[in-house]
Amino acid sequence: MGSEEKAGLFAAAWQQGKSKMSDGAKNVKKIAQDDPRRVVHCLKVGLALTLVSFFYYFSPLYNGWGVAAMWAVLTVVVVFEYTVGATLSKGLNRVFATLMAGALATGVNYLADLSGREGEPIILGASVFLVAAASTFARFFPKIKQRYDYGMVIFILTFSLVAVSGYRVEELIALAHQRLSTIAIGSFACVFITLFICPVWAGGDLHELTAKNIEKLASFLEGFGAECFKREVDERDSMGVVIDGEKTFAKEGYKSVLNSKSNEDSLANFARWEPRHGGFGFKHPWEYYQKIGSLSRQCAYSFEALNACLTSKIKAPVEFQEQIQAPCTKMSTECSQALKELSTGIRTMSKPITAAHHVAAAKTGAAELRTALKTALVLENSSLLEVLPMVTTASLLVEIIGHTEKLAECVNELANEAKFKNGAEVGRTPSFLHRATVKPLPEADGDGDGDSPAPHVVIDVYDQPDQPVLDCPRKQTKERHVDV
Amino acid sequence: MGSEEKAGLFAAAWQQGKSKMSDGAKNVKKIAQDDPRRVVHCLKVGLALTLVSFFYYFSPLYNGWGVAAMWAVLTVVVVFEYTVGATLSKGLNRVFATLMAGALATGVNYLADLSGREGEPIILGASVFLVAAASTFARFFPKIKQRYDYGMVIFILTFSLVAVSGYRVEELIALAHQRLSTIAIGSFACVFITLFICPVWAGGDLHELTAKNIEKLASFLEGFGAECFKREVDERDSMGVVIDGEKTFAKEGYKSVLNSKSNEDSLANFARWEPRHGGFGFKHPWEYYQKIGSLSRQCAYSFEALNACLTSKIKAPVEFQEQIQAPCTKMSTECSQALKELSTGIRTMSKPITAAHHVAAAKTGAAELRTALKTALVLENSSLLEVLPMVTTASLLVEIIGHTEKLAECVNELANEAKFKNGAEVGRTPSFLHRATVKPLPEADGDGDGDSPAPHVVIDVYDQPDQPVLDCPRKQTKERHVDV
Repeated sequence: MGSEEKAGLFAAAWQQGKSKMSDGAKNVKKIAQDDPRRVVHCLKVGLALTLVSFFYYFSPLYNGWGVAAMWAVLTVVVVFEYTVGATLSKGLNRVFATLMAGALATGVNYLADLSGREGEPIILGASVFLVAAASTFARFFPKIKQRYDYGMVIFILTFSLVAVSGYRVEELIALAHQRLSTIAIGSFACVFITLFICPVWAGGDLHELTAKNIEKLASFLEGFGAECFKREVDERDSMGVVIDGEKTFAKEGYKSVLNSKSNEDSLANFARWEPRHGGFGFKHPWEYYQKIGSLSRQCAYSFEALNACLTSKIKAPVEFQEQIQAPCTKMSTECSQALKELSTGIRTMSKPITAAHHVAAAKTGAAELRTALKTALVLENSSLLEVLPMVTTASLLVEIIGHTEKLAECVNELANEAKFKNGAEVGRTPSFLHRATVKPLPEADGDGDGDSPAPHVVIDVYDQPDQPVLDCPRKQTKERHVDV
Repeated sequence: MGSEEKAGLFAAAWQQGKSKMSDGAKNVKKIAQDDPRRVVHCLKVGLALTLVSFFYYFSPLYNGWGVAAMWAVLTVVVVFEYTVGATLSKGLNRVFATLMAGALATGVNYLADLSGREGEPIILGASVFLVAAASTFARFFPKIKQRYDYGMVIFILTFSLVAVSGYRVEELIALAHQRLSTIAIGSFACVFITLFICPVWAGGDLHELTAKNIEKLASFLEGFGAECFKREVDERDSMGVVIDGEKTFAKEGYKSVLNSKSNEDSLANFARWEPRHGGFGFKHPWEYYQKIGSLSRQCAYSFEALNACLTSKIKAPVEFQEQIQAPCTKMSTECSQALKELSTGIRTMSKPITAAHHVAAAKTGAAELRTALKTALVLENSSLLEVLPMVTTASLLVEIIGHTEKLAECVNELANEAKFKNGAEVGRTPSFLHRATVKPLPEADGDGDGDSPAPHVVIDVYDQPDQPVLDCPRKQTKERHVDV
């Protein structure tokens, strides 16, 4: 191998190493950018650990606590979690489990002491076996698994350590006191830092996640109507436009909703440990978020079926498409707006204002579809087979209205339970349900030459149907519109 | 309050306590019966802990190891998990992380020692902060989170403990040796017991879960055809029969498939740590189980939409139902049989034999449906609206055939990758694809009085189309059938 070849190999290796390094750097950047709180979390862990380490390192304290001070460091490493709820849950579990197991083990040690040299190891061994087996079994209970799993582990740990430590009871009490204090100090350091330095609330994250998931559903439906019908037309014109259309349509966004259950469940579980913060009280009804999540997934399951219809190769005849396009587009658009309203309602913690109206409008769409299908004698020109995917799409959209309605009910229940404010209190005004421009009336000007602003019709229909505003004629504004 | 009242209250409290106790006992019984391996697991944990505790308790050993022996107990409590894979993963993570962090911390301590009295705490503090922050950040990488999360925690823990222990380097090496030995002993005890006493394999559980989920899908489809059409007819006869029909139909069984992802992912992750066992080699393609799981969920999503169609209040006219009943029932039954075959194939670790044929038959059903829909001019008598739910059902069934086909392909890939045996090698014979009875030919007996067993036609069509068996006439059996 010549020196040139060698140089070439080195250069290649160098290039490869450099590209790997830059890949790694990109990865780090991406993770940090996805959620900048992660970087803050890392600094918080470093800070907590450094503080507690110094407490262990500096001699005056170290001499006082002995090796037990190590437990403070250990506690920080094991207890410090990303969210406040998780940290609190682990910290409290650790402190109380240590307390209870320590007391129980001290009692057992006392009994074993009484039973003399020979009986002692038997009693101790049997008690460790029984406590370990029983506590391990308890971890299989779903309720315990969910909230006290870590506590059970620490219970077994502390009991075994104290029971077989071989110390006398008097020494044990001093030791237990020491261990408990260090664990409490470690837990306190974690809880203090997690609570007061840029806290990450599991409850807030769950709240955000729920609103975001509903928004993803809304985005899918928003583009769906256009996509479903445009696609059919475009494919007859040119293929390029279809691809363009697909790019802007949020076809895959909702997929993450399908598998959000485990994430939601763990966040809800941690949220229950969190104190009052932001708009969330101590008894905030977290279980509603799980219900809303489950209904969102139901919606997403229907989207899967809808997506399959989109890719069908059988195309309905244009006349049939034209017959059902309007009601179908109306259903998907109105559902999308209802979902958006629900998402905004959750995000701003205010009662959803127009969601019910959008659902009602979507239902009108469904009724229009029903009329269209009743009268559509399409089979004179085409077979049922040809309209199959389109009919399935329509049917799934009707189903989605049902899911949206249930979702709206559940969000309303949450809003009542959690005492969400009214829209006006958070600065949200009811948006117009529909808006359309009408031509000015030529005779309104008097002479019909159109040189002065023509009067116009304004019908504002707000979400309270009993407050229609009908001004006609009015001269102040140049714009002519009908808001229905 | 009279003594009688008091007695009454006591009796009530006693009754309540008794009923709570019996509820608790029922709960315990249920958890144990659901999976009896749980009880064995508890006994295993008790055994491991008692063994290691005695190692700590008995003086000769205790004097040799000092307080460090405590780490053996701690390791057992933390490392012992339900499945072999989880225990191995935690044990190996713990040992290697301790080793690496110990070495790094010793090096840092040496450097700090060199820098004198004043520089020491600064170097130590800074190093603890940096290592803790960097390792915590590493835990956000999905790949590290998945496989080495516990290792990262132990790395931070050991590094902090060793770095700030304040010992000199020579002492540190002795201490590190002690700690590492005790941790290795604890891990070894766990791994030994988990491997050799009734092992619970994560891989085996994942394998079982995958087969079971596909079977649940098959059970749903098995009853679906009958349910879908019988229901329509029954409701005209009497309501009682419908409820009876619903009881036998496995309507909800597939629901657990919808949320099986997190369970499958964690089992697949642990399975990768497990050594060769049963039919699973060290490089068993576990990723295929995750793919199969994802395809199973796709199927289950379509079932959700199907279930919604079942509850629709719009009923199709009887004539229309009769037109599409046969192809729809064929599609669902054949898909169900294909899924059952796939499930059996996975469970017995043999190549699925007839699945492809059942899928082909289901496709024939879909083609028949297409013909029926092409010619069905139902709209002369009824509107498209009336047939909407039934048409949607048919369309969803066609979609499910697609999912089933993909699932079959994926299972075949798994069978090839994992070198599953042929059906014959595991004692499975190809089942008949179709079976129908034909009337005996009256003239075959010779006199037509039917007093002796008539000859009969048997056409057995196995899954290898080139091996048809045609025996005619044959006198040995009384049964007359054609197997096609």
